[in-house]
Amino acid sequence: MNNITNEFPGLNAEIDGEPVLYLDSAATSLKPKVMIDAISRYYSGVACNVHRGKHFAMEEVSNQYEQVRYNVANLIQCHGNEVVFVSNTTEAINMVASGLELQKDDLVLVSENAHHSNLLPWSSKAKTEIIVSLPNGAIDIEQYERLLQQKPKVVALTHCSNVTGIYIDLERMAALAKSVGAIVLVDAAQSIPHRKVSVKSGNIDFMCFSAHKMLGPNGVGVLYGKADMLESLVPQTLGGGMVDWVEYDSFRLRKIPHRFEAGTPNIAGVIGFGASIDYLNRVGIDVISEHDRRLGHFILKEAKKRDYIKVICDDESLDRGAVLSFAIRGLDDLDDVSRYLSDSYGIIVRNGHLCAQPYTQSQTDGQVLRVSGYIYNSEEDIKTFFSALDEICTSMLNISSVSA
Amino acid sequence: MNNITNEFPGLNAEIDGEPVLYLDSAATSLKPKVMIDAISRYYSGVACNVHRGKHFAMEEVSNQYEQVRYNVANLIQCHGNEVVFVSNTTEAINMVASGLELQKDDLVLVSENAHHSNLLPWSSKAKTEIIVSLPNGAIDIEQYERLLQQKPKVVALTHCSNVTGIYIDLERMAALAKSVGAIVLVDAAQSIPHRKVSVKSGNIDFMCFSAHKMLGPNGVGVLYGKADMLESLVPQTLGGGMVDWVEYDSFRLRKIPHRFEAGTPNIAGVIGFGASIDYLNRVGIDVISEHDRRLGHFILKEAKKRDYIKVICDDESLDRGAVLSFAIRGLDDLDDVSRYLSDSYGIIVRNGHLCAQPYTQSQTDGQVLRVSGYIYNSEEDIKTFFSALDEICTSMLNISSVSA
Repeated sequence: MNNITNEFPGLNAEIDGEPVLYLDSAATSLKPKVMIDAISRYYSGVACNVHRGKHFAMEEVSNQYEQVRYNVANLIQCHGNEVVFVSNTTEAINMVASGLELQKDDLVLVSENAHHSNLLPWSSKAKTEIIVSLPNGAIDIEQYERLLQQKPKVVALTHCSNVTGIYIDLERMAALAKSVGAIVLVDAAQSIPHRKVSVKSGNIDFMCFSAHKMLGPNGVGVLYGKADMLESLVPQTLGGGMVDWVEYDSFRLRKIPHRFEAGTPNIAGVIGFGASIDYLNRVGIDVISEHDRRLGHFILKEAKKRDYIKVICDDESLDRGAVLSFAIRGLDDLDDVSRYLSDSYGIIVRNGHLCAQPYTQSQTDGQVLRVSGYIYNSEEDIKTFFSALDEICTSMLNISSVSA
Repeated sequence: MNNITNEFPGLNAEIDGEPVLYLDSAATSLKPKVMIDAISRYYSGVACNVHRGKHFAMEEVSNQYEQVRYNVANLIQCHGNEVVFVSNTTEAINMVASGLELQKDDLVLVSENAHHSNLLPWSSKAKTEIIVSLPNGAIDIEQYERLLQQKPKVVALTHCSNVTGIYIDLERMAALAKSVGAIVLVDAAQSIPHRKVSVKSGNIDFMCFSAHKMLGPNGVGVLYGKADMLESLVPQTLGGGMVDWVEYDSFRLRKIPHRFEAGTPNIAGVIGFGASIDYLNRVGIDVISEHDRRLGHFILKEAKKRDYIKVICDDESLDRGAVLSFAIRGLDDLDDVSRYLSDSYGIIVRNGHLCAQPYTQSQTDGQVLRVSGYIYNSEEDIKTFFSALDEICTSMLNISSVSA
């Protein structure tokens, strides 16, 4: 997608005069100029509040803010009142885990490779069982079906792993969970930026994702909740904007989704998010998905050419996006590799446990290095990355050559 | 402060070709260009995440982010690890109200004129008693001292009322609360933008405020907590970035303040907030306070000249800022006044219950109109506002002239 790369100012950034190659979009994406401009435009005008008065500017800003709610609803095929703006995926999942008022002996199924944000909110409040994956990274469906026989109250799915980049069959897994009466929550933080995800497929109850991973700003996330689920969810944060009537000892909640948006929201952020959704739609979600799949398989193929790399789940037959994590044989601590890549080559990747520590620990004794691409990355970028990694590992592993 | 007005692009905004006069800064302030530019600059560079890896860009961004924490700490005279970044004041107060794990029979004292965000989080979790004000708007200190004899667990103070603009004697009230062993929380959303507030004076335990009311961006607020109070506060939101070690059935919290910042934070917002704090410091907090007091008294004097206006607390001897609310005799619903002001005069003020409904209800049968100024407003602006209001009220009240 070369024709769009000049629309991202971040692609022209330099580290010590060296152009930057950004391959950490699974953490947070770069931003297109139209998104940055939308935020500046709001702040440069009458940057007033929303839903709190009757003047012209407030109505204009409120309308813009609510329009983005409909843009999100269109994106995931739900109703506008089922979209709650939050600050990030983590907050969204916590709002559900707390708002369901779980009891300690309620059962929640969580994914083996869940991000901490889709693990800790559940394990701290209820009994959890782990949906395990087969060694190749695919879900062990038989084990999942056995777990479902225990009638979990909630099934918390991870649509796409932020470690392996592998997608689950969401429709099938959600439908199986619904068939035993479970509430289904989907962490879609890694999938929505790349795929068309409809909440209707699989009859999903809650879905959570973040704007900042899909060309949007920081501090904005989405909690989708099916209307009747939101109606019965207990708001955790109380204050202005989420109540219709207040007395000193009682209050009446506003209708959904407003009862979940207490206090002055991230108005600029939501408006910027609107611009990023428009941008993604213009490029075309289908085009983006295709690019993501192709780039993902290219990364995997390049990694598998190298003996010094141990990929976490290297099955080429699985549905995967442009995210790949791997260990380097003979190197436990990858801080130095990550730093050489950035300081000497301008290449930005991520290392560590990727906020999915139990899973990465189970796959490798040490850390992993994660490379992730987005619409502004090409196969050429991936080749550049591996060639730099070859040089670094040749030197660090103290051998003559590791290259493919 | 005429010399700074050209630094706020919002002051050049127009409604239907009419220049805008913004008098709703108690809701949210306009933004200086330096703040807008700081956000654009971050998004236009390698807009990466914080605290999640070992590459150059992440360290640079992490350092910027942490530097703002120290700027905030300097502003309110605390230690850096006592500053938690949240999304707004409402979230901050809720984090404390939930994190203290109050029991239903714990007593919390709340202010009569509290914003909903400093009332509902307490009344929904504990027994509350109201700290009342005298008719002139000053705290009834004798009643407060009687309440304190009941040994409240928490005293939730409102430093400056968002309805009346009147300040409490924070140091005295906090010290009285501490003397009976209460935990003191201060809603400083309306004061920090205008005054030097040190958490040391009165030995405050928690203080909460929002960036967007002090020239900063949306989606960023501060929870100050005394180190030992933060250590014992239970984090409500769990996920990435707030844990040191995670297994499927247990986790170890990171040190304060990070354990309260789960998920990708509003990095751009925090960086923008840093620019707004720098800006306020350059203007000088003392200069700003002086301007705020003078403008506040000017608004009050102008309002009191008019018989058709019923000011909520019109005592000129009290310590007050540039916020004033009033009813209009003979008009219950002020939506139309607010709309005429904006649509015909380009003047932006606020009407309604101001998210302090129990208090405004007790002061007037209907709504109030609130006018609030900030560093970019002059006495001339206030005159323009009242002259427009005179015209509107002459017409709506159907009398020959209401002007002073």
